[in-house]
Amino acid sequence: MGSAETKRGIEVLAPAECLRLLASVPVGRVGVTIDALPAVLPVNFVVSGGAIVFRTVPGTKLDAATAGAVVAFEADSYGPVPSTGGWSVLVRGVAHELTETGALAKVGALPLESWAWDGGADRFVRIAPTVLTGRRVVGPAALG
Amino acid sequence: MGSAETKRGIEVLAPAECLRLLASVPVGRVGVTIDALPAVLPVNFVVSGGAIVFRTVPGTKLDAATAGAVVAFEADSYGPVPSTGGWSVLVRGVAHELTETGALAKVGALPLESWAWDGGADRFVRIAPTVLTGRRVVGPAALG
Repeated sequence: MGSAETKRGIEVLAPAECLRLLASVPVGRVGVTIDALPAVLPVNFVVSGGAIVFRTVPGTKLDAATAGAVVAFEADSYGPVPSTGGWSVLVRGVAHELTETGALAKVGALPLESWAWDGGADRFVRIAPTVLTGRRVVGPAALG
Repeated sequence: MGSAETKRGIEVLAPAECLRLLASVPVGRVGVTIDALPAVLPVNFVVSGGAIVFRTVPGTKLDAATAGAVVAFEADSYGPVPSTGGWSVLVRGVAHELTETGALAKVGALPLESWAWDGGADRFVRIAPTVLTGRRVVGPAALG
């Protein structure tokens, strides 16, 4: 289940399997542009309604960089030795601040902490996947 | 040691400490532009001579996206529960293929496997940090 294609030790994952795997880890990385340079920053996140939701602190570069921008989001997991295999999922889509009361009440109840919350106000950001791709390295053989 | 600044539970890390932490983990994520969209992809990497070195497979999108481009590279580590703290380091710089025989011989001896090597030819990519930043979340209090 979840395998759309298998080639040379790399299993291409179906979207439903990508979402299931994303929901199994607490930390992902957001790929954005900051000060005209690419940046990758870790965030704690949850999967809610088929989308990625994470928290930012207003005024930070991450907050500014994810306001209405097309961003990447990646999460992965691998064994104690990477060559034993693992998986990675890549989400790409537009990031929007969550502002609807109903949506905020829902994510407010989720186990969602900012990676580096400083105790100030916070904001919830949602990435609805426009592109959702994933792959699993299925075993040591795949790594030669 | 290694702390250039501490504020509200977030410790800003000095470059030497960033490199030391990077060398302690086997997998990082490269932030690039692929098909005009941001992307974040995991790679196995090593720190060699103060730079990031990872392997790509010629003909892949990661290989094309890291040819002479300004890229981001991130690695992090956190406890079993992210709120117990962790660290992240962000490297930004130009990615170049390693072509010098001496450099190739050196990295060829490193414990460096591609995340998804398919057994074909490979290429080594080096990112010399133009910008090197890191932070450590020093404890549960930092996450409220």
